[in-house]
Amino acid sequence: MANNRILLNCDLGEGLGPWQMGNDAAIMPYIDCANVACGFHAGDPVIMQKTVALAVNHKVKIGAHPAYPDLLGFGRRSMALSAQEVEATVLYQMAALDGFCRAKNTAIAYVKPHGALYHDMLRNDATFMAILRAIKAFDDKLPLVMLAQENVQHWQTMAANEGINLWFEAFADRAYTDTGALVPRSEPKAVIHDVAAMHKQALQLAQTGTVTSINGKTIAIQVDTLCVHGDTPEALDAVKRIRNGKEFS
Amino acid sequence: MANNRILLNCDLGEGLGPWQMGNDAAIMPYIDCANVACGFHAGDPVIMQKTVALAVNHKVKIGAHPAYPDLLGFGRRSMALSAQEVEATVLYQMAALDGFCRAKNTAIAYVKPHGALYHDMLRNDATFMAILRAIKAFDDKLPLVMLAQENVQHWQTMAANEGINLWFEAFADRAYTDTGALVPRSEPKAVIHDVAAMHKQALQLAQTGTVTSINGKTIAIQVDTLCVHGDTPEALDAVKRIRNGKEFS
Amino acid sequence: MANNRILLNCDLGEGLGPWQMGNDAAIMPYIDCANVACGFHAGDPVIMQKTVALAVNHKVKIGAHPAYPDLLGFGRRSMALSAQEVEATVLYQMAALDGFCRAKNTAIAYVKPHGALYHDMLRNDATFMAILRAIKAFDDKLPLVMLAQENVQHWQTMAANEGINLWFEAFADRAYTDTGALVPRSEPKAVIHDVAAMHKQALQLAQTGTVTSINGKTIAIQVDTLCVHGDTPEALDAVKRIRNGKEFS
Amino acid sequence: MANNRILLNCDLGEGLGPWQMGNDAAIMPYIDCANVACGFHAGDPVIMQKTVALAVNHKVKIGAHPAYPDLLGFGRRSMALSAQEVEATVLYQMAALDGFCRAKNTAIAYVKPHGALYHDMLRNDATFMAILRAIKAFDDKLPLVMLAQENVQHWQTMAANEGINLWFEAFADRAYTDTGALVPRSEPKAVIHDVAAMHKQALQLAQTGTVTSINGKTIAIQVDTLCVHGDTPEALDAVKRIRNGKEFS
Repeated sequence: MANNRILLNCDLGEGLGPWQMGNDAAIMPYIDCANVACGFHAGDPVIMQKTVALAVNHKVKIGAHPAYPDLLGFGRRSMALSAQEVEATVLYQMAALDGFCRAKNTAIAYVKPHGALYHDMLRNDATFMAILRAIKAFDDKLPLVMLAQENVQHWQTMAANEGINLWFEAFADRAYTDTGALVPRSEPKAVIHDVAAMHKQALQLAQTGTVTSINGKTIAIQVDTLCVHGDTPEALDAVKRIRNGKEFS
Repeated sequence: MANNRILLNCDLGEGLGPWQMGNDAAIMPYIDCANVACGFHAGDPVIMQKTVALAVNHKVKIGAHPAYPDLLGFGRRSMALSAQEVEATVLYQMAALDGFCRAKNTAIAYVKPHGALYHDMLRNDATFMAILRAIKAFDDKLPLVMLAQENVQHWQTMAANEGINLWFEAFADRAYTDTGALVPRSEPKAVIHDVAAMHKQALQLAQTGTVTSINGKTIAIQVDTLCVHGDTPEALDAVKRIRNGKEFS
Repeated sequence: MANNRILLNCDLGEGLGPWQMGNDAAIMPYIDCANVACGFHAGDPVIMQKTVALAVNHKVKIGAHPAYPDLLGFGRRSMALSAQEVEATVLYQMAALDGFCRAKNTAIAYVKPHGALYHDMLRNDATFMAILRAIKAFDDKLPLVMLAQENVQHWQTMAANEGINLWFEAFADRAYTDTGALVPRSEPKAVIHDVAAMHKQALQLAQTGTVTSINGKTIAIQVDTLCVHGDTPEALDAVKRIRNGKEFS
Repeated sequence: MANNRILLNCDLGEGLGPWQMGNDAAIMPYIDCANVACGFHAGDPVIMQKTVALAVNHKVKIGAHPAYPDLLGFGRRSMALSAQEVEATVLYQMAALDGFCRAKNTAIAYVKPHGALYHDMLRNDATFMAILRAIKAFDDKLPLVMLAQENVQHWQTMAANEGINLWFEAFADRAYTDTGALVPRSEPKAVIHDVAAMHKQALQLAQTGTVTSINGKTIAIQVDTLCVHGDTPEALDAVKRIRNGKEFS
């Protein structure tokens, strides 16, 4: 991807019926890309319609954020779907969200799987390829967002075979292992809460293309987009600070 | 609608996960239009993908068959959705199904609401207009299928205001009241099971533009499409006989 | 019901998976009866287990709060269930909640239908009787909570026929019509937000057995329990003030 | 378990809303134990009520058949639930089914997890113990059904710690590996379709306490109950033949 700068992406539209989550209106002005829930882990048709309208108002790119069908688990519980089930499930969600974009004279701009599906696609090539096929079937110009890592050749080969671009994503607020993976949420220090630390990690990623692991190791990773959160005052502050940097604006 | 003949439409793709319903493969060769369930009353992403593929193989038009979100009630229980909820719910389902069509280089060709939503849109103008808005937002060239009746001016006016075409639908296997409404399923003789009687009603509709009510009254109705079923040997026989008539082939 | 005082009841356990709602921990110390969501409009097994534990810790009676199967609509949208469906649906939810009570060596103490089901049972006798049958089948000593009104003979007769007690419920924070019904939420002034006004309405109900309608009419109603909310600082303040009165403590 | 004979158990009540599955009425007269779906992988309140009534009419024991919350996957897809989620999910389902039993003056008699949950509890001790806790919380006299195997000491120890009995289950229509596990359904010859072969395997299990693996090895397993199916004419024939043997009647 030939970005001159790193795009900021954020998970949005994650309410459900009467239940709210996050603060979409507060974060939307500061991001480039909205990963919009498609109804399987969160979101419902009314919320999707509103979230798309908000993104369009702020000229923010809209990405499909498909997930396993698991509302109670918020899509964070791995599920043993077959490749065929993954392909059809992802295609369904992409298309449903795109309908709301189409109603606003736009279209989805990329696909970022959510939660357990995001992690499982890196562990299971059949899942990764099923997602590629879903994207290819819908619109082969849509990039797939995956976790930036030291060595991504394996996934680049699969994506190239289907003619799909990859966008590599890093996190300002997550700790990294020595191999460039995310420290699991179940472990202490997995999530960075300090605004200055988040800002520092974002700057390092943008300026040097590296991240420092939880053990102090420097890891080189290609980053096209940085995932940020805006659901706490601290997180929103961090985003504003990151946004002010020339690498992100 | 300027059809030279009456199109045969049928509800298809109404299985769910491991549960089967109907006999899609048997009926598909004899129909013009497949009303495909979109996951809210029946159907799931894998079934939708397969049903679309089957329809494409038989050169059958694919219609979105959106419903209330009610799997247990099969979309047959009226639900008090707001107009905003109806609009977003219908748009979501249309778009999701269209994704599977797009993967096969085609697109949905019309919209026919299912079950209680189909009936409620005729009783509640806010519901009818919400469906029109959903169609207009997605593709204003898609016709909306509604029940043929003696006097349809009321709905034609609303549809014309949004620039949407209506297709009027009759039934070969349902008894009619004196006002051209369907006899409710809860009443005896609501459903016609006799193949010859179905064939006769279909022919009368096509040749004379009339139907004879359960009390013997002759009612004039404009008919663009005839809804048929293929889920029993009798129903399938009836469709084959109807299909043989020049009015339907 | 031979209460010496009016019981305070509150809807609780209304989160879902990752989504929170209300502030159960703050309100629980001030109420007598917790209406616990059973998974159909809100609540899930983990939340139900926690809510029951919290109620047990505070020696609060636990009531089943069954609803239509409609998470997206939070059980507030009327659904055309058959009487058989209502009966089985309510029995399922009562029993499921009772399982968590049983694990804590207690049992559900009453049944209060939620949202649209609560309102529909007063409009539709078949629904009311189906709920009575569900209660009778599970435990005929459990009272059914319904809206207090000027004339409740109609429902008392049905309940007596099944051997079920009724508890009549009033609201401190809802405006009443001249016939003793609740002003619908869709109308302005339906909900009372002023703490002093809530307190005054609660006291009048307890001391005089009357409520003053939105038009100033005084209506006599029998009240066994008062429904309160604790999901805003104002609501919680109102409950604390009401609780201090000798009629409620 | 001190049975004088091997109990025949069968999965029942596996329809959903309008969708049917199996032939409960045909098989019920020939079995001892009905494993009744509880609404998470199949079944709904109305179907559960009817299935319990049918079992009671035939004096068949009723077992809870709890599953992961996955209707589309019929509970056959592994899901990464936490131990707390498993415990609450199983307790919810047991209690809900027991409510329908209570309405018929009976109670559930055992618990047999369904599908992926059944398999996962043998792979994951935290899952197994969570199920034990759910049973203990509800009624510690209810046995837990698990797959018979050569060496079951590991699970017997855990169950004894919680004071729960285990029932060991074998299959007449499934092929066994050399270690006494079931050959996965994804492999050829996993399911035995020949009536005579099913009958032979059932007799061998009952008379000698052994089963012959797919490779011809003889494996000793303790069997309390035999799982049978009645959803095809062949399966029903096999059950009738097995039932005629003195070991099973």
